[in-house]
Amino acid sequence: MLKLYFTPATCSLASHIALEESGARYEVQRVDFSRQEQRSPEFLRVNPKGRVPALVTDDGVLTETPAILAYIGQSFPGSPIGVPSDPFAFARIQSFNSYLCSTVHVAHAHKRRGSRWADDPAAIEAMTLKVASNMSDCFELIETDMFAGPWVMGETYSIADPYLFTLAGWLEGDGVDPARFPKVLDHRRRMAERPAVKKVLAALEG
Amino acid sequence: MLKLYFTPATCSLASHIALEESGARYEVQRVDFSRQEQRSPEFLRVNPKGRVPALVTDDGVLTETPAILAYIGQSFPGSPIGVPSDPFAFARIQSFNSYLCSTVHVAHAHKRRGSRWADDPAAIEAMTLKVASNMSDCFELIETDMFAGPWVMGETYSIADPYLFTLAGWLEGDGVDPARFPKVLDHRRRMAERPAVKKVLAALEG
Repeated sequence: MLKLYFTPATCSLASHIALEESGARYEVQRVDFSRQEQRSPEFLRVNPKGRVPALVTDDGVLTETPAILAYIGQSFPGSPIGVPSDPFAFARIQSFNSYLCSTVHVAHAHKRRGSRWADDPAAIEAMTLKVASNMSDCFELIETDMFAGPWVMGETYSIADPYLFTLAGWLEGDGVDPARFPKVLDHRRRMAERPAVKKVLAALEG
Repeated sequence: MLKLYFTPATCSLASHIALEESGARYEVQRVDFSRQEQRSPEFLRVNPKGRVPALVTDDGVLTETPAILAYIGQSFPGSPIGVPSDPFAFARIQSFNSYLCSTVHVAHAHKRRGSRWADDPAAIEAMTLKVASNMSDCFELIETDMFAGPWVMGETYSIADPYLFTLAGWLEGDGVDPARFPKVLDHRRRMAERPAVKKVLAALEG
């Protein structure tokens, strides 16, 4: 059975929703950052990077959100989260998810994780100051150029949707008013109404 | 015909090598950063992000290295760069490439592109100071935990190989002695001997 290592309020939410949408049997295990469990020997044996998400499969462990989402999408082709077999259609999804992973998530991470990239406290503070404008720029591009609507890729729901939903949920905390991005905001509202999303969010609160 | 927008000494090298390995007919167009061509209206119509690589296909434009590599791999399944159809085997490749994209490339980018994440010149300088140790940490993880050998994924050459080759080529410039990572260094040497790699590197010098 699939097993997802997750932490609330992190990008592992995207994989969690995708698993729920897939109809797969899975279990979850929380990694408690407040207790530094991501650095524990037990967890580092699962994921030497010390990060969530990590998905344990019968074949081995997968890490990195775009890879986990692609795996779920390819493994459950008939589900709402199944990915297209056409290489271009699939690559468009991967392109969107790669942007979220390498640019949007990285922009966000400079708020609380600046110590990854500098040791000087003043530098870390300077990074924090730029997070709101960087996240705004990212979501401006998503709103204007990347979001097809009604779902990220157009008419068909895909693995890009739970990932966008997850990162769009960070806007207020990063000092950005989501009302500036009406398509993204409407997408967030419609995502929150999906049964799979409701179930995952309720489980996280429980 | 496929058309790759590239810039020498950037991550577009990975897609360039993959195209050459695939046997596809393709053409290339250089985007000259020294003339700010990546911000030109012509190029922004191709890629609104103003970055390379961008791959123009008959179906549309693709951006983001992991997505372009996956597209080439899926489109030319019988070539040396073809990707496996098994979802787990494919996701392992995507996981490796996603790590290169979102962690290793980002670590490197703090050397010359620190202004993306802070405005204060002292903060940008502080980021530069940490690049060597961050790149070392990344390649330590690759050398120890991620690189199967003789190719990144094991016995079979894959789209992960040109991507690792590309980023491993940045080590010296980032102040890291590649001799610390014998597997990565040996991989770099064997990659440089491949006819496809030789051809691409010769074209870039020409």
